[in-house]
Amino acid sequence: MNTPLAPAQLAATDRAHIIHPYLPGTAEERVIMTGGSGCRLTDAEGRSYLDATGGLWLAQIGHGREEIARVAYDQMKQLEYFTSFWEFSNDRAVELAARLASLAPEGLGHVYFTSGGSEGNEAAIKMARYYHHRRGDTGRTWILARHKAYHGIGYGGGSATGFPVYHEGFAPMMPHVSHLTPPWPYRKELFGGQERTPEQVTNFLIQELEERIAEIGGENIAAMIGEPIMGVGGMLVPPPDYWPRVREVLDRHGILLILDEVVTAYGRVGQWFAAQYFGITPDIIVTAKGITSGYIPLGALLVGDHVAEVLLRDHGFPMGYTYNGHPVAAAVALANLDIIEREGLLARATAIGGHLHRELESQLGDLPIVGEIRSVGMMLAVELVADRKTREPLPMLQPLLPDVIRRESGVIVRDCAHSLVLSPPLIMTETEAKETVTAMRSVLERTLPTGEIRA
Amino acid sequence: MNTPLAPAQLAATDRAHIIHPYLPGTAEERVIMTGGSGCRLTDAEGRSYLDATGGLWLAQIGHGREEIARVAYDQMKQLEYFTSFWEFSNDRAVELAARLASLAPEGLGHVYFTSGGSEGNEAAIKMARYYHHRRGDTGRTWILARHKAYHGIGYGGGSATGFPVYHEGFAPMMPHVSHLTPPWPYRKELFGGQERTPEQVTNFLIQELEERIAEIGGENIAAMIGEPIMGVGGMLVPPPDYWPRVREVLDRHGILLILDEVVTAYGRVGQWFAAQYFGITPDIIVTAKGITSGYIPLGALLVGDHVAEVLLRDHGFPMGYTYNGHPVAAAVALANLDIIEREGLLARATAIGGHLHRELESQLGDLPIVGEIRSVGMMLAVELVADRKTREPLPMLQPLLPDVIRRESGVIVRDCAHSLVLSPPLIMTETEAKETVTAMRSVLERTLPTGEIRA
Repeated sequence: MNTPLAPAQLAATDRAHIIHPYLPGTAEERVIMTGGSGCRLTDAEGRSYLDATGGLWLAQIGHGREEIARVAYDQMKQLEYFTSFWEFSNDRAVELAARLASLAPEGLGHVYFTSGGSEGNEAAIKMARYYHHRRGDTGRTWILARHKAYHGIGYGGGSATGFPVYHEGFAPMMPHVSHLTPPWPYRKELFGGQERTPEQVTNFLIQELEERIAEIGGENIAAMIGEPIMGVGGMLVPPPDYWPRVREVLDRHGILLILDEVVTAYGRVGQWFAAQYFGITPDIIVTAKGITSGYIPLGALLVGDHVAEVLLRDHGFPMGYTYNGHPVAAAVALANLDIIEREGLLARATAIGGHLHRELESQLGDLPIVGEIRSVGMMLAVELVADRKTREPLPMLQPLLPDVIRRESGVIVRDCAHSLVLSPPLIMTETEAKETVTAMRSVLERTLPTGEIRA
Repeated sequence: MNTPLAPAQLAATDRAHIIHPYLPGTAEERVIMTGGSGCRLTDAEGRSYLDATGGLWLAQIGHGREEIARVAYDQMKQLEYFTSFWEFSNDRAVELAARLASLAPEGLGHVYFTSGGSEGNEAAIKMARYYHHRRGDTGRTWILARHKAYHGIGYGGGSATGFPVYHEGFAPMMPHVSHLTPPWPYRKELFGGQERTPEQVTNFLIQELEERIAEIGGENIAAMIGEPIMGVGGMLVPPPDYWPRVREVLDRHGILLILDEVVTAYGRVGQWFAAQYFGITPDIIVTAKGITSGYIPLGALLVGDHVAEVLLRDHGFPMGYTYNGHPVAAAVALANLDIIEREGLLARATAIGGHLHRELESQLGDLPIVGEIRSVGMMLAVELVADRKTREPLPMLQPLLPDVIRRESGVIVRDCAHSLVLSPPLIMTETEAKETVTAMRSVLERTLPTGEIRA
């Protein structure tokens, strides 16, 4: 019934029928993947690729693992789905909830399932507001977020997202969101223009936070939401004391802390959760992506027991997604967590991430358009500048650098703002790390401060 | 690593860790499903159930089909996932897009993938606003919806949802949504109190629509969103001329029509889409659920070519969900559509749905608490009343009727407002249909107009 299409037909059919995110109708090129194994992908024309982005930052265990496919098969045949609304549940969802609670920071022993990060951030914002509402603190409706934040594209999370492109043409967004300055020390213009120590950057941001709370009124604020390391912002790593000090301020005002760990959780930063890396305990952690390494859509919120107790009062928490607690997704997640544990991928993320960072330093560190190289574990960024002194961002021209790198070498990297970012599978080898950086260097060394690329 | 838990442990672990939608913390009972086949389910204690709700209204092809598990296995091993952002795609997503375009109403030849209905309605609202924005019609931001509507629980779709319980404690919701009267002829109090013909009900609703448009200003309205048959409202079937006349009014004002077919699509009403049942062409159709029969999370928007052309201008449509175009989900959907076709499940929905309707009439029609029995295909409702003359709704007391029916007979039905609703797998047999209704009668014949159930 589904006759295989030839490569050219696939591309033409794609152009005729699919609306791809962020792709103009005028774009002719299609890269139609047909196979994956480890860090490698193959397209319909037989070309091979090295996936240094881990899909969309999620392929922790790498592509095409038969072990996971087997688990999905067994579960789908046994019980593919039933609802988890009301008193209904299934064995796999229960096992996964217990497993997540055992991995989570102390006190976050409750789990609420979704099918992805956007659904998760909608739920987290609702939980935070609902928590206060149920306690009679009905004025607490404001959400603090940051510019350059990415919290998905539902209307709730999307309102917390801090880029104009995600709001333009979609407004009016959800009201009562206020954006703060992102912790991005390299961009000294955000902090008055002078070079500052990490502590001074934190001081600046904490003062801004205190002032913003005073403006809005602490008694009107439900929660602050933030990515521990800001992904789409360009893998922005805050000073080490940023999160502990933010937590302290929020606590003082009774404001919940939601960590959006959709990218950072499940080994990406060398720990199960970035909360542990930064040594803080949020009230809610939003996760997705790495929980299944992308083999099947799934998300999970880890919810503080003190929050859950309130949500479960009276008629319970009145929102649910159809696929909440999906048994196949839960079975796949359990098998994925098994692999992360069995293969030591938390430690591996730190080791191979460190190796990759050093490779970036040694191969790219001398290039005049390379401003800052930063990373935690397997989240890495190379921020590009027109001028290393002024730190003026490199103009991003067409064709974009990732496209040129991919076309020339088959290595897939991504740009975020003015950075090239990497988030490979945690199983990446040292050889593949070198191949990635060599491909980047080959293009970046021909890139002029104007953004143009020499042939 | 994952030692199987005994039934009592499963229930205790569930209570300790899982936040179920709509379940109070005080509820002790858990029904932990462990297996499914056809219309039957089995729980951890070995009890058997007849699933007359099709999970959450989605199990078109029934539970536990090995054929689908095999397809998921093969695809997961071959290519479990890569992104479909930008120029990236995969063969299965392309094939599915072409297949959907071939099934869709004429002119809806473009597809945008999501992982479910809530994501889909967020995307549809954004598309509608963005469409007008891109054309320079930037004032068109309002969304018309209906009371008793259910459009998921993202902040966008959730704002269009028309029940107070989905807003209370979550506000402020997304602005610029206006709710109209639902097409629910049986509730004559909505239409001035007198009995009216279907045409008169439509006249009333069209006049209200015209007045609302005049109030807001047609030039300020982006779209109207509606379920062709309102599910959570209680399978509310509008008069036959309702949708064609709504479409005509919207066209006159340049307002887009979004049909939320998350429940109605893929055979539920005996056609691929309810748009075809009502003979209208919307601008956007939101689908999910039945597209995979729930075997894996997936959703798809079918987008009018005239809308897609605008969305694809300039930098393209700036929103994307991680799992957009997920290859395993697409492969499962293709296999699911194959089964629907091969087994003739569109025709079967009409036939067995008709049979089920007649069974409801003959077994329940004489009960004094049964007000109206209504259905299209395999969406059925029995609206319950305290008094057939006044049509006063039956008080819904604890324990709820579906719980009593399930505990006594193992038959799973659902309540929506004051109706019991059915949406079984389309493969249900006549014997199973009879068993369902017999179980309902056994409880309903003991239900008093006060809502109490005699022992």
